[in-house]
Amino acid sequence: MAEALTLHEDPRSGNCYKIRLTAALLGLALERRSYDIMQGETRTPAFLATVNANGRIPVLQIGEGADARFLPESNAACWYLAHGSALVPQERFAQADCLRWMFFEQYSHEPNIATLRFWLRFVGEANLSEQQRAQVMARRMAGCAALDLMERHLAGHAFFCGDAPTLADIALFAYTHVAEEGGFGLGDYPAIGAWIARVAALPGFVAMG
Amino acid sequence: MAEALTLHEDPRSGNCYKIRLTAALLGLALERRSYDIMQGETRTPAFLATVNANGRIPVLQIGEGADARFLPESNAACWYLAHGSALVPQERFAQADCLRWMFFEQYSHEPNIATLRFWLRFVGEANLSEQQRAQVMARRMAGCAALDLMERHLAGHAFFCGDAPTLADIALFAYTHVAEEGGFGLGDYPAIGAWIARVAALPGFVAMG
Repeated sequence: MAEALTLHEDPRSGNCYKIRLTAALLGLALERRSYDIMQGETRTPAFLATVNANGRIPVLQIGEGADARFLPESNAACWYLAHGSALVPQERFAQADCLRWMFFEQYSHEPNIATLRFWLRFVGEANLSEQQRAQVMARRMAGCAALDLMERHLAGHAFFCGDAPTLADIALFAYTHVAEEGGFGLGDYPAIGAWIARVAALPGFVAMG
Repeated sequence: MAEALTLHEDPRSGNCYKIRLTAALLGLALERRSYDIMQGETRTPAFLATVNANGRIPVLQIGEGADARFLPESNAACWYLAHGSALVPQERFAQADCLRWMFFEQYSHEPNIATLRFWLRFVGEANLSEQQRAQVMARRMAGCAALDLMERHLAGHAFFCGDAPTLADIALFAYTHVAEEGGFGLGDYPAIGAWIARVAALPGFVAMG
């Protein structure tokens, strides 16, 4: 019998949404447990001791009680869920290329696009520290560079790794489809817009939130 | 016959070193092609058009001429090389857990520890911009948090995913073993020190540079 799956999450987080979207596309049941990161609920001693010593969400919990295992890092949790499915290419180069886009997402996309969304939509521009304010322009430019690269790739491909969706699409969809909340105008990116519509039309798709 | 493997790299980069170390531990031949990132050699039109539109190294090239394929993102290139080897766990949770540490490396470790090493050792403290200077303290604290998490994990494990080395160790070794060049004192981290010695003693190990 399959083990129970629990997602420790904040529903406003795109990183958490990736896991929920992966589960939905695969038809896997997922129990959701919410934390408010703005209130420090992932930094409590109990959370740090049992769920994630790194104090971050999302964390995918597999099993329950004393045998429960915990998997932090959104893209690693997606990898666990999608094991053996068509969302993870099996061929050697294709699998590495899928991971290539997932590492790009965590290194070049999320720190810029998700961070500006968090600052502008949830913290509020008026509440930013001097240091955060000084970083807005650099993150804006780096976020645009990430979107430019995606646009050029998607101009020639239906999905990131060819003709069918993979975890690369799920990872990149999460914060791209809400990039306007971070002040990134998606009107300049028609191939990204068409890809967003393709992902949103996948059987089993669930919306963020 | 195996395809020719070429690493487009800067030998000072820990991200490039990961790929070279993976190949060495697996006994794979790798041709090295050097670029000086300080001179913008990965931003030339030729590099952007053929090797990586993202203007970054490392890139692993598989094959040659018109059939060559290019794989950016250091950890994805390692994944390609290590396909089917013991450096990639096959069991479902173990494989996701290996990736968990690799995503942690790119998100929580590299942007802090590698960036401070680059700024202090290669750019030089006197040459930092105001904006870079304002970020030093935050990156220092985040880098220490990453090392703390590693230390606590390694206090109970010989390697990141159990008793044998995996790509998680290679990914985290690259910038950890030179963290002192970024001003991080490793004397406070005895479990990390012992793990560095274990990695450096692996058969086939090659040094950075």
